[in-house]
Parts: sequence; C-alpha cells; structure tokens
Amino acid sequence: MRSGIVALTNMCMIYDDKGNVLIEEKVGRNYKGLIFPGGHLERGEPIVDSVIREIKEETGLTISDLQICGVKDWIQKDGSRYIVFLYKTNSFSGEIKSSSEGEVFWIPLDELKKKADFWHLDKMLEVFCKDEFSEVFFDATDEDYDVIIK
Amino acid sequence: MRSGIVALTNMCMIYDDKGNVLIEEKVGRNYKGLIFPGGHLERGEPIVDSVIREIKEETGLTISDLQICGVKDWIQKDGSRYIVFLYKTNSFSGEIKSSSEGEVFWIPLDELKKKADFWHLDKMLEVFCKDEFSEVFFDATDEDYDVIIK
Repeated sequence: MRSGIVALTNMCMIYDDKGNVLIEEKVGRNYKGLIFPGGHLERGEPIVDSVIREIKEETGLTISDLQICGVKDWIQKDGSRYIVFLYKTNSFSGEIKSSSEGEVFWIPLDELKKKADFWHLDKMLEVFCKDEFSEVFFDATDEDYDVIIK
Repeated sequence: MRSGIVALTNMCMIYDDKGNVLIEEKVGRNYKGLIFPGGHLERGEPIVDSVIREIKEETGLTISDLQICGVKDWIQKDGSRYIVFLYKTNSFSGEIKSSSEGEVFWIPLDELKKKADFWHLDKMLEVFCKDEFSEVFFDATDEDYDVIIK
C-alpha cells in the first residue's frame, strides 16, 4: 500500500533489576486486564516522545534510555492497520502514581507470564523479551487468522 | 491522533563480518544516491515479510534473523506520516542481483559514513549502528525543522 489509514500507538515494559515489570490493570468499558502502559501518538509527535509522555501520564514515572523491541501489527476488519510500537527500559525515576486508566503495580515477570491472556500480551512478551522476534502480527480480515510472532 | 494517513515502508542494512554493508545506488526520476534497499509494505502484509520480499526483489538475497533497529518517522507537509521500519541482518544467502531500482554493491561501512548525504542516511546510520537510538524524526510542517535522532 502506498498510504492508508493507520492508528499509531505505543506500549512500554518498564523493568527493574530484580525480575519485576510494571503492569497496568486496565479498566475500560469493554475490557479489563493486565497490560503494559501506553497509548496513542499525538498528531506530529515523535514516537519516543509519545512513549515518555504516556508513561508519565499513566504511571507517574519519568523514563529514559528507551530500547525498541518490535511492533504489534494488526490488520483490522476494515483493512486498516493498528500499530503498537513496543519499547522497554529499566531507566526510570519518580514515584508510581496510577491514573484513571488503571492501577499500576510491580509484578514478577515470571508471574505475569502465567496470567498474560489479555490483548495478546503472551505473544507480546516474546517480542519484549527475545531479540529474535520483532513483530506480533494478526489479520482480523481472515476468519481463520491466528496471532503469530516473527 | 486516533488514526490518520500513514505511508508504511521498510529499509534493511545487510552487513557482513568484515565491516561491509550492502548499499543501493538509487536511480529515480527526482533522486539519485546511496541508500539501503527497501520499499513499501503491501496491503495486509506483515512488516518482517515485507522486508524479506523487498530485499529479495532489489538485491537477489534471501535474508533471515532480522533485528529491528528503529523507525524513521517523517511528518510530511500535509501532516500525514511517512514511516520507515529500520531493520538489519547479517544472515543472508544467494547471489547479489541488482534490480531496475538501482545497482547494489558492498561498501565498507566506514567509507559509506563519509558519503552518506542522501535521504538522511547519515542520521539513519546512527540508528542502525547504536542501540541508544531508535528514531530519526523530522517535521516538514515546521519551516525551521531539523532532522533529529532519539
């Protein structure tokens, strides 16, 4: 495609040096589950700046030294794309403060892996944690589609 | 922005274990210069698949074990975005075969750095080569804009 309708969003896995990650328990009208914080890019906003802003808004933390891990790439039923830029960092400062989007708290990564059943977080964790993967892809226009990692 | 018009493209730096990278001398109607091979995503195509396909078409090589390095993120004059997913790999097989888009050939990376004056390749090389950077950003709606890396 030359150009098309795309939603651009971000998500960030903040981790410490003790095996914990910062998770958000999202509470939306149509969903509820454990997911990493993030959100939509603003018009004209650089991707890295959008990650830093969303993390500040949803967790209270100021992050730096972001590493790109990959992309969640979702073909929606109308054929448009939904893209999530996946970042991680262990550089952060400030105090945790939850927002109206959901409570944020530390959880051992091993424990999260057992509970990751929301928004394909199980597949996203493979991309966040393993260098050989850089994409979570699924195509909702295909009724037999499965979520794959590449 | 919730959703907007976005062009999605890719670019890949293929490198060997002797300090060389595979470059393409693009020959378009309005441009001519040294750049890494790549191109547009097809409708519904996963990003990783699009990189493998474009590299096959433009260089003759079959690549694997792709690593994501970052994104070139360009706000165009009409406010739409132009995104280039930047990948690299040193896993390739086959024989080099140039396409009508331009001749491809190996060049020492150090030599390329001195010649990189086309399409912000100098800034992209920072993202390809340094883990601390993941974005080349510029905003063409701002007359005083400069290309920055983040």
